[in-house]
Formats: sequence, structure tokens, C-alpha cells
Amino acid sequence: MAQTSSGSMQGAFLMKPETIAIRELPKPQPGLGEVLIRVRAVGICGSDMHLYDTGRIGQIVLKDPHIPGHEMSGEIAAVGAGVTSLAVGQRVVLEPGLACGHCRICRSGRYNLCSAVKFLGVPPHHGCFAEYVLAPAQWVYPLPDALDFAAGATVEPLVVGLQASAQGGVNPESRVAIFGAGMIGLVCLEASLARGAKHIWVIDVVERRLGLAKELGATVINARQQDVVQELRRQTGAGPDVILEATGAPPAITTAFKAAAKGATYVAVGFIEDSTMPLDYTSIVRSGVRIETVFRYANQFPLALDVAVQRHERLARFVTDRLPFARSADAFAVAHARGENTIKVLVEFP
Amino acid sequence: MAQTSSGSMQGAFLMKPETIAIRELPKPQPGLGEVLIRVRAVGICGSDMHLYDTGRIGQIVLKDPHIPGHEMSGEIAAVGAGVTSLAVGQRVVLEPGLACGHCRICRSGRYNLCSAVKFLGVPPHHGCFAEYVLAPAQWVYPLPDALDFAAGATVEPLVVGLQASAQGGVNPESRVAIFGAGMIGLVCLEASLARGAKHIWVIDVVERRLGLAKELGATVINARQQDVVQELRRQTGAGPDVILEATGAPPAITTAFKAAAKGATYVAVGFIEDSTMPLDYTSIVRSGVRIETVFRYANQFPLALDVAVQRHERLARFVTDRLPFARSADAFAVAHARGENTIKVLVEFP
Amino acid sequence: MAQTSSGSMQGAFLMKPETIAIRELPKPQPGLGEVLIRVRAVGICGSDMHLYDTGRIGQIVLKDPHIPGHEMSGEIAAVGAGVTSLAVGQRVVLEPGLACGHCRICRSGRYNLCSAVKFLGVPPHHGCFAEYVLAPAQWVYPLPDALDFAAGATVEPLVVGLQASAQGGVNPESRVAIFGAGMIGLVCLEASLARGAKHIWVIDVVERRLGLAKELGATVINARQQDVVQELRRQTGAGPDVILEATGAPPAITTAFKAAAKGATYVAVGFIEDSTMPLDYTSIVRSGVRIETVFRYANQFPLALDVAVQRHERLARFVTDRLPFARSADAFAVAHARGENTIKVLVEFP
Amino acid sequence: MAQTSSGSMQGAFLMKPETIAIRELPKPQPGLGEVLIRVRAVGICGSDMHLYDTGRIGQIVLKDPHIPGHEMSGEIAAVGAGVTSLAVGQRVVLEPGLACGHCRICRSGRYNLCSAVKFLGVPPHHGCFAEYVLAPAQWVYPLPDALDFAAGATVEPLVVGLQASAQGGVNPESRVAIFGAGMIGLVCLEASLARGAKHIWVIDVVERRLGLAKELGATVINARQQDVVQELRRQTGAGPDVILEATGAPPAITTAFKAAAKGATYVAVGFIEDSTMPLDYTSIVRSGVRIETVFRYANQFPLALDVAVQRHERLARFVTDRLPFARSADAFAVAHARGENTIKVLVEFP
Repeated sequence: MAQTSSGSMQGAFLMKPETIAIRELPKPQPGLGEVLIRVRAVGICGSDMHLYDTGRIGQIVLKDPHIPGHEMSGEIAAVGAGVTSLAVGQRVVLEPGLACGHCRICRSGRYNLCSAVKFLGVPPHHGCFAEYVLAPAQWVYPLPDALDFAAGATVEPLVVGLQASAQGGVNPESRVAIFGAGMIGLVCLEASLARGAKHIWVIDVVERRLGLAKELGATVINARQQDVVQELRRQTGAGPDVILEATGAPPAITTAFKAAAKGATYVAVGFIEDSTMPLDYTSIVRSGVRIETVFRYANQFPLALDVAVQRHERLARFVTDRLPFARSADAFAVAHARGENTIKVLVEFP
Repeated sequence: MAQTSSGSMQGAFLMKPETIAIRELPKPQPGLGEVLIRVRAVGICGSDMHLYDTGRIGQIVLKDPHIPGHEMSGEIAAVGAGVTSLAVGQRVVLEPGLACGHCRICRSGRYNLCSAVKFLGVPPHHGCFAEYVLAPAQWVYPLPDALDFAAGATVEPLVVGLQASAQGGVNPESRVAIFGAGMIGLVCLEASLARGAKHIWVIDVVERRLGLAKELGATVINARQQDVVQELRRQTGAGPDVILEATGAPPAITTAFKAAAKGATYVAVGFIEDSTMPLDYTSIVRSGVRIETVFRYANQFPLALDVAVQRHERLARFVTDRLPFARSADAFAVAHARGENTIKVLVEFP
Repeated sequence: MAQTSSGSMQGAFLMKPETIAIRELPKPQPGLGEVLIRVRAVGICGSDMHLYDTGRIGQIVLKDPHIPGHEMSGEIAAVGAGVTSLAVGQRVVLEPGLACGHCRICRSGRYNLCSAVKFLGVPPHHGCFAEYVLAPAQWVYPLPDALDFAAGATVEPLVVGLQASAQGGVNPESRVAIFGAGMIGLVCLEASLARGAKHIWVIDVVERRLGLAKELGATVINARQQDVVQELRRQTGAGPDVILEATGAPPAITTAFKAAAKGATYVAVGFIEDSTMPLDYTSIVRSGVRIETVFRYANQFPLALDVAVQRHERLARFVTDRLPFARSADAFAVAHARGENTIKVLVEFP
Repeated sequence: MAQTSSGSMQGAFLMKPETIAIRELPKPQPGLGEVLIRVRAVGICGSDMHLYDTGRIGQIVLKDPHIPGHEMSGEIAAVGAGVTSLAVGQRVVLEPGLACGHCRICRSGRYNLCSAVKFLGVPPHHGCFAEYVLAPAQWVYPLPDALDFAAGATVEPLVVGLQASAQGGVNPESRVAIFGAGMIGLVCLEASLARGAKHIWVIDVVERRLGLAKELGATVINARQQDVVQELRRQTGAGPDVILEATGAPPAITTAFKAAAKGATYVAVGFIEDSTMPLDYTSIVRSGVRIETVFRYANQFPLALDVAVQRHERLARFVTDRLPFARSADAFAVAHARGENTIKVLVEFP
């Protein structure tokens, strides 16, 4: 990166589906209340992959080359006027959904649903696969000493797990069934444990992932080898009373609703784009199940940092692939391959 | 009914689908803590109709002749030992879901989900299309003077509306969209008004029903004539933030989710038996909508009696058809015909 | 006011306790995102009176001449850069607690507890007893056509009533006891009615105020003439399950706790400065009462504007005294006298 | 106890304040739905001590000799008709508050506030300092194998801690301050840990108890040696956001409110009988603190049994004094002495 001029920086652009290229772009300068963060690690999220695979995300279509990435850690490189809470050199993480803070929904505390949000990494807002990223100081948190940059990049996914488990009302009494043992399923597991749950089942079809979930404290069920509904009923008695669905896959969803205890809370964490799926509406109503939907998160970052400090050695295990920034294209290819050994792919800066 | 011997009574039995016959059966005697109620009015509910039409309800199949009916009012005819709260001759209504009261879910306050519930009118528990019905005193409430027996028979449906609006969190600030202007939609309207809502839309395709909803204070949309999503968006701004879905019909459900505001609460009140339906899962998750399901009700009867006193003249308008008990078969035929002028069919005893 | 130069304006300053003087001060100019509001009406609040009476409010001591007032309505006189939601000439009301919007407590939705709040009218932030007041556009709401400026000035107190009734969980089933029939008690009454409550008792010692409460729909109890605990128990059965305490007076508070139903919610709305009072802690714990404390409000202004439109003729009755701005000193004197006929004193601008 | 005839049993009666005597009384027989439990261990609770010390508890005055005790474990000795869930010989614990199960407050899930409750051990209902105790099967829970009878007798106090922490909303993010390191303070600590809290302060004046709290994971503050408010503020930043007050002592309560963060939840768990105390009402309101009061508990026994299995070695440490039933008088004397080394005094049956 020696070739970057003082006024420019490098970013990994998604040029078109399945094509990542490193290009130079102007290095931004922090304005009033903003900080410039030198990125040190950034993870590839499922939504980044969806954009990479299809050139779309929700209603948003990739038109121009775009820098993805929102799971990051880094260091303060410069602070704008009026910033007193952060200093150059400080290690930080970023909450990437820059909500407006003053609309009705922000004021009510559900800022994840702010219509004016700028979510870094979702077009048209460039993300964190770049040497530097700019953000308002209020969305930047000090990274505790106990967490290295790689662990710092797992804080954002952990936030998703904490949000899901909060919406599910997970507590020590819960019988929690987590569908999916990928990154989101695993952070749901960690978050549920952090909330005191002791009875957690994780369902997946990949034995290797189930093995990790088991080591972390879950009872595991391989949906290829066992009848999930029958097993959950047998092992829980009345069925799980909290379901954290982290796959978005129709068979898992169908199974989850079948297994749910009466009056359970089903939390939709995972979803597949453009997915209409046949749900047994009548049975769901008859069972008195409540459905919560997790669209991003609110008010979970401080907690996540705290939980991450306590559980950082466990979180570190989720980072299965680490590549230097210069190999960002390879990193996306690894994530795209969805190998059994891959949970979280991280790109790091020297 | 002069021919009924002192130890027997008449009941309207569903013999097989679409066949009602009046038969004699033993008149029950109240045991410890029970009361015998002389039925004075009983309404035909959608679930009664489903049993009448198909011989099934959920997992339950009609095998033997069965007395349906659970929307009732009457008078205490006899009291069992230990009953001090009620006296012979007292006018009453009955909460028909006899929950056990001591299982874990009953103790938690959600007794509508009690697995040991005996719901009168659902096989194998005979219901209220009979001269007399037996019930534990604890599920029987005095009928206020302001309510006649016909109004008393509308209290149970009103309870459903109150339950739905409670789960929806309806309050004066809510923008409520009610899908369906049949009995359940209309009690949802009354219940929402009782909870202080001032901005209520009712959607249906039957002009006559919409006319009634309008008279009662709703803004109405005819789904045959208008684009419901567009109208709701235009009139509410961000979309309704509470949806009370009282049809169970797939097109209405699809429309309701499309119209919902970000972060709205969707309450499934109506459902059609055996209905698997394609839902746009991804859009629902993306919009942050919460889904509540109304399976019966809990803790709403005292409130309903209170609300009914205040609104009894309005509730009376929902009773469109009144037939004597001897014509119970005709009453079911009227309900079965689902005429545009029919909202609630009532059978009355002299 | 012809004598005000183009760069200055007049304000009513509290010079020292019990001394109001109109003085000129620079007319502010709206900066980025701000609006300048020409004040048209401003009410005198209990907290204004406390400052007037004692020169103190909480930990804050009056040092320099200070402009009080935060219950206002007016017109947009100028808009700063970046303001698109409001236009010159538009009729508006102001939410006077300018919370920061991005601290942890603001993000969680409880912005009334923001430590960085600037509350207009509380030193050192000048308030609305002035020709003009400056505010960020995001805290300024259009005043509906149905409300004149006097009604507009009652919106802020109504917000307090809505906050209190929200914290109390007032609903159609509630048995609400409101202690105090001054402005705050009366807006608690209006707010409770708006939330669907039908069973409301208002307790005071001033017959005239009780008369108004009665006309507005409450059952009233004169604490000088009746045993309040006994009456509330007799009339409610188990005691009120929501208490909105709007006096802050020790005898009322003691009575309120005695009367409360088991498991009731007691809401502390009113308070007297520097008041340590003997509470029967043991009885409160034994009765399972929950105590909510109302310190300002959050997320209630949009609702209040809506409720005010529906109830503006009733709110108008609370404005008992209207004086022109030039007579601000007299207005404070009237409020200070606490006459039986005085509820809300308003100062108006021509 | 060989001298007990087949139709009688021995019980430890409180004859008058500070006087315990073992007397024979008829051995009860289980009726319909009841079980007879042979008591194996029973703890002395603060409320037992209050009755022992003063002959009163709340409005209730000791008139006749009375058997106290409600923290018990034992074995099923006989089952009445209709009992299928429990069998002779089964190890069990008892939830001692026999709520009616069908009044309005029971149905709502808050059965701890049931007006018709029979609380075993509170006059006129004999308690568990006896060879046998009778109870409806529905209030009796199997004691897990992992728990011996002594641990079983600590389940009921643990329930109090779980109830308090539930009402306080304790979660992993909470900053919890627990006032008092006696039995109730310590179960509040265990319960808070079980709910995932990681930041817990325990305040007491007895070094030995603080030592135990520290070993169990709390940060401790000795109120005799440190300025509690200052320490809590310094160590927590904004002050604790959950306070579990387990002493009932006025100085602790005053300190707790002073230390509380804005918007904190204060939970009154401990209380002293007949205690009116001066509270700084105004400061409490200004700080936006919510006050929850713990009067007994509801819906916590199943959770407590589960938590107890996980933490039984820790709970065992709270049992500091174990005496045989024949020495019940000595056991009460030990508890009465309130020695620094005494946490929980247990009476055991051979």
C-alpha cells in the first residue's frame, strides 16, 4: 500500500456480481463530529455475500462499483471538529447503521427501523473494505483491550445474536432452539448463554459446525440424521419456547414452527432474499406462537462489547479464514464457496 | 318444550356435517363448585360453522352427535355445593374455556393456552345449544342489568376483539387497519375504539358491512374497488402500525403485510382451517413487523362486560338474525348461507 | 412592542424571586437546522412558579436574570439552513426538552432522562416568555388547524398527562384515582379518558375544581369532606389499580398508598421541591404496589397533538386567565396567588 | 420420635414470642388432590423470626400456638385421591403460598397477590416445622436428584432472589447493586448471576458475609468503611441501574436511592415490619427511578429448581447451621442471635 498517495486510499470494490477489485478512491476527511477510522479488520457478512452473488440486496440494485463491509474494527486516524470522546490512535469498533436520531422511530428507541438510516456497506453508502472509513463519533465505540482487532470484527455479528435473543426473551428458564450453526446461529448461541440460558439446542446439517456448537455448550441435532421435531419434543417436553431461526431456509422454518411449544416466541433472524414461502398459518395461530423479526439491531453494541470481553476466546473460534486486504477478492471467493470449515472470513490490514 | 321430563333436557346436536337435530339428553346436576345455567341466548360462531360444514375443527373430528355453541347468556337454574358467588335466578354469561388453573401456563396468566382446557362446544365437550349447561362457578360472570340476553351472547365475541386489540397494543396513537367487517372484524373495531383508538380503517368487500363499520366510526376501504395498500399508505402516511386480520383469507393477509408500517404489529385473529399460505417471509422480516396470534383469550371477560355495558346499543346491531331454539337447524342454515345481511345469528329460548 | 429594534426582542425576565421585568435582549438568528419561532402564547407551569417563588429548581439556583416558560405555541418567523420540514408563517408548538439524541439513554427511547438535555425555560436555558424563541426544527411540531394558540399552549401539559397515564398503564379496565384537580390532575383526567378509561376518580379539596372534573367525566371526592380511602374502597371494590398522584402533597400521597389496590401502579406525577416525606414502606411492599416516577416525558407530543384536536374544547376550559405579554408580571402574580378559580394562566402576544 | 402414635405427629409450635415447644398434633390425611409430605429439612426465614420475636406479622397477630416454617424439602408420605403426578417416596419441595387459582389476580398470573392465598407457616395456617405437612399436589415439585434435602430447603429463598431479579429486569448489561449480604441478598446475587449479570456490587457491614459475596463473584463494599454512594458512582459510572434492596434498613434504603442511576429500577425485597421511613420523594421522582416491590413470588419455582441444580454447591454454602428437629427451640435461638457467621439455620429430620 505504499503506493497510496496522501489524499487517496485503497478500497475493495464490488464491480459487478462475483467481481472484487481494489481501486483507489479519495481518502475522506472528518467533518464536524466525525472521525476517520483506519480499518484493521473487516468480516464478510451474509448480506455482503448476497450483494456479491446477485448484485442486489432487498430493493437495492448494484449500479456503480461499491465497497461492501460493515463488520469492522480499527483505529482512530483523525478526528473532526467537536469530537472529544475519541482520540487519534484509539482502538475502536463501528456501529454501521447511522440512524438519524431524531425521527419518531429513532426517538422511540427502535432506531434500527429508521427510514433515513445510512447503513455503511449497503449501496449507496460505501462500507469498510477500505483503508479508511468515516463515521460520526457517536456511532464509534472504544474497543476494550481484551479484544484484538479480529475479535473486534466479530462484535457486530454478536450484536445480531444479542438482538435476536433479546427479542426472543431468552432467560435462564428458556428452552432455546437455534436453527443454523453458521456465524449467526453461533452468535445466537453465545448470546443466549450470556443471557443465562442453560437449555439450548442447535440444529444444522453440517457435522463440523454442530461439533463446534456442542463444544460451546449446546445440545445438537443433525437434521439429516434425526427427526428434529420428534427430538425437540422428546428432549424438551413441550417443545422449545424460544426459537432463533438463523437459516432462512424453508425446511428449517417449517420444522421450527412444528416443534414450537404452545405460546412460544419464534424469532426470524435469518432470511433469504426474495423468498416467499408456504407457512402453515392456521397451525401457527392455533399454537399461540408470537413471531418476532430481527431487522438489524438497536441498543446492543455496549452490551456486545461487554459480552465479547467475557467470551472473546470463544468468539475467536468463529474466525476461520483470515486474508490480507490485498487478497480481498480471494476472501470473497472463500466465503462464496461456503465450505464446511468456513464460518467467518476476515480481511485484515497490516 | 313441555315434553321435556324433569330429568332430561333438549339439545341441538350436530349429527353429521350440515345436519342439526334436536334431541333429548339427561339434564346435568351441578356438583361441587358448579352451577347449572338455563341458556337464554346462544350465538353461532365461525368455529361452530366450521364444525357444521366439515365435521372437523383443528385435529378434532366429529364422531358422535355433538352440541356446539359457546357464545351464551342465561340464568342460574341451580347451584352446587360450595357456590356462594352466584344465586338461582341470577342472569349470567359463561367464559367457555375451562382452563385447569394450576398448570404452569395457567399460572403464568396465559390460560388460553392451557393444554388441559375443556372448551365447551368443541368435541368432546358439549356446548350451549341446549336448554341447560353446566359450568364451574368461577367461569360464570353476572350479566349487568344494562345488557339483555341477546347482548349477553355478544360478550364472548367482544372478548376476542379485546384480546386481539390488547395483543396489538392498540392505543390512542395507533393507526389500526382491521381486515374483515364480519362479526370478528366488528368487535375488533369496537374494542379498538374502547381502547381509545381514533384512526381505524376497516377493509372488506361487502358494501353493506362496510356501511355499518363506517357508521360505527371507521374509515372504510372496499377491497374490490380500491387498491388497499395504496389507500392505506396514502391515508396513514407510513402505513398502519397495528393490523387486526380477521378474515384468514390469503389475499387479505398478503395485502395486510404489504401495507404494514415498519415495526408494525400484525395480529392474526381470523384463520381458515387447514390453511397453508405463501407468505413473503423476507419482506416481513425486513419491515420489522411483529406477528401476534390470537388463540382464544385470557383475562378479558371482566373488561368485556364493562365495555359491553357502555356500547350495548352498538353491539345489538351485530345481531342480525334471531331464531327460537326449536329452529336451530334453520339458524345454522342461515349462518351457512353467509348472506350479506347476516352478521351474527342467535338462537333464543323462550 | 414598536420600540423593539430589528435586532432585538423583548423577554420577561425573572430578575429575582417574585420579580418579573420585561427587558430587551438580542433576537436570535436560526443556525443550521434551527427555526426561530415567534411566540404567540405561553403558559405558566408549576415549575416556573417554583423558580419564581424560591429562585431555585432542583439543584439549579437562579443567578442571572432568566426567561422562564416552556408551554408555548407560535409561528415560524425564520428557518435556518437545512430546514425543510417547516416554513415561515407555519403555526407550531415546541417540545422544550432538547435531548441530545445520541447518548445511550436517548437511543433507548427514554430521552426525558438525557443528561445533556437543554430544557428551555430552566436556567441556564432561556425559555418562552419572550417574543421569539430558537429551537432545532426536530423538536418543533405543526399546530393543527383545529387548535388556536391558547389551546396550543396546553399541549405541553397534556403531554405530561399522557406520559403519566402511559406509565400507569391506563386502559379501559383501569380504576384510576387522580389526586389533584389542578392543571396536571386535569390533563391526567383527559389523558386517561383518551386511553379509554371509564372509571376515574378525582380527589381534591377545592370544590370548584372538583366541579370541573365532574363535568369532564370523573367521579369526585372532596378530601375535606369525605374519608378518601374509605370512599375509594367502597366505590372501587378492591381499591384503584392506577393512581396518578398530581399534588406532591404528603397527605395526598399517604392517602393514595393506603387506598391502592394490591398490585396497583402508583405514578408520581407531582412533586414538591426539597421534599422528604415519611412513607409506609412496609405496607407499600406488602401491597405489591409498583411506583412509577414521571420526570418530564418522551414520545408523547405527536399523540398529544392528536388528542388535543379531539378534545380541544375541553382543554380550552383549563385556561382560566389570559393576559398580554406586557402584563407578564401580573400573570405571574395571578399564578402565585393560587386562587381557587385559577387553573392555567396564559400570556399572549398580539 | 418413636413415641409418636400412628395418628399423631410432632410439630414445633411457637407458643408465644421467643418460645418454641414441640407438641403432638393429629397427623393429617391427604384429601382429594392432596399429598402428605414427610418433612426432611426446613429453614428459618426472616418472617419466621419476626413472628418469633414479636408475635406479629403484618396485620396478623399470634393468638394460638402456631407451627411456622415454609422453606422445606421432604418426601411424599401419602397421596390423596386423584393425585397422579406424585408418588409415595418421591423427594419434593413445596411452594408454600397456596393461591386460589381462579380469582382475577390469579388468572392474570400474579398469584402472589391472591387475597385468598393460604400461606403455610403464616397464622392461621400451620407450616413445616412438623413431621408432616399437607399440600395440594399442584404446589409440590419433584426435587431433582442433584439436590439433597438441605439444598432443597434453600430453593424457596432462591425463588425470592429470582423474583426480585425478574422484577428488576436483571440482564447481562445490568449494573446491579445488592444491599445486604444475608440470605436474601445472597440469593439475589445467585439469581442475578443466573440471569447473566456480570457487574454486581454487594453492600453490607459484616465483613464475613462480604467475603462470601466476593467469593461468589460480586464486587463488595463495606458500608462501615466506605462511602457507598461515592464508590458505586465511581465504579459504575452512572450509578447502578438495578438495585435489589434486601435489608429493609432505612440507612441502606436512603443510600440506595442516592446511588441509583437515572431511570434505574429499585426493587424492594427486604422490609422491616411496621416501618415508616423518610424518603426523598422529590429526588426519586427527579431521577426517574421505578420502584418494584417484591411481595412473595409467582411462577419462579420451576426456574429455581433448575438454577439450584446448576448452583447447588454454592447454595449449600448458605446453610451455616443445621440442627435436628428435636432442637428446634435451639435453632430459633441461633437465628435470633443473628451471629455474623449465621446465614441460614436449618432444622433436619432424621
